[in-house]
Amino acid sequence: MAKVLVETSARHVHVTEEHLAILFGEGAKLTPKKDLSQPGQFASNERVDIVGPKGVMPNVSILGPTRKTSQVELSLTDARKIGIAAPVRESGDLAGTPGCVIKGPAGEVTLEEGVIAAKRHIHFTPEDAKEFGVEDKQIVSVKIESDGRSLTFGDVVVRVSPKFKAAMHIDTDEANAACAFGEIYGEVIL
Amino acid sequence: MAKVLVETSARHVHVTEEHLAILFGEGAKLTPKKDLSQPGQFASNERVDIVGPKGVMPNVSILGPTRKTSQVELSLTDARKIGIAAPVRESGDLAGTPGCVIKGPAGEVTLEEGVIAAKRHIHFTPEDAKEFGVEDKQIVSVKIESDGRSLTFGDVVVRVSPKFKAAMHIDTDEANAACAFGEIYGEVIL
Repeated sequence: MAKVLVETSARHVHVTEEHLAILFGEGAKLTPKKDLSQPGQFASNERVDIVGPKGVMPNVSILGPTRKTSQVELSLTDARKIGIAAPVRESGDLAGTPGCVIKGPAGEVTLEEGVIAAKRHIHFTPEDAKEFGVEDKQIVSVKIESDGRSLTFGDVVVRVSPKFKAAMHIDTDEANAACAFGEIYGEVIL
Repeated sequence: MAKVLVETSARHVHVTEEHLAILFGEGAKLTPKKDLSQPGQFASNERVDIVGPKGVMPNVSILGPTRKTSQVELSLTDARKIGIAAPVRESGDLAGTPGCVIKGPAGEVTLEEGVIAAKRHIHFTPEDAKEFGVEDKQIVSVKIESDGRSLTFGDVVVRVSPKFKAAMHIDTDEANAACAFGEIYGEVIL
């Protein structure tokens, strides 16, 4: 009964160097506010507004470091509120996804695509994957016991890389649906 | 493999006759906008603002008919946004829950308690309960198959009454976590 740490990813943005310069000015850098579980990843102090056809999601954190492609990860609650029909996708799988406007203090960027609700997933090192008996891209289930909203998430994608640290990521809607608050572990079911 | 209709309950309020008179004026009545699945229940045209310590959830629908006790049902996403630590509770189980202010066009009401996130539940008639092999208050699981977010909800309370019609109710966070949109059926697992 191997268990994995379950972490909640709140709404966030990834930006390219080019977009960062437009949003925060030439030469701007992302400044780390808090390290995340995945090695090298951090929540930055830099925040932007995400603008959709029906509203604005203000003050959304940019996660660093910068990426090759800009991407906005919202919960489906968030996305609906600002009028964006975000599909459930894996990070980076952006073809055909809706766009939005990102507003920073120095300027704004229009994304033609890039707004998603993150598909729930587990980060494993190759060693973790061996221990859990799973492979990269495998779909598993994860059972979470909580006070009043226990559930088993299906459709959980396993992602394996030596750069990762073992953690499952769910969004705020999913955390609320499971009452998965605080330090929570889930049982991986093959 | 008996299946039940799964419906999403968006944020809503139940009010007493007394509170309705304060919120909408003496002699005010709830006017039906849309019938709900449970016989006699309806979404009304009357809407109120729910005020918490950190913000306002505007334009929340009142469900009719009026009740013996006023109650506010929010998703955990909603509740957190306005600064209320809503517990997951069954409808009517309000002892020790947080309060809020309800604002209507004619006046406002301060609830000392009554804000909850609804515990997921199934409405069954006695005949349905017999068919599914369950009893009132029994805890079951419900499996939902969707495109990308299949899951099995645990901690689902069965409620049995001849006044009901067969339907499972989940909130918007739970619907988003399962991509349970449109006409969805769940498999009841004992």
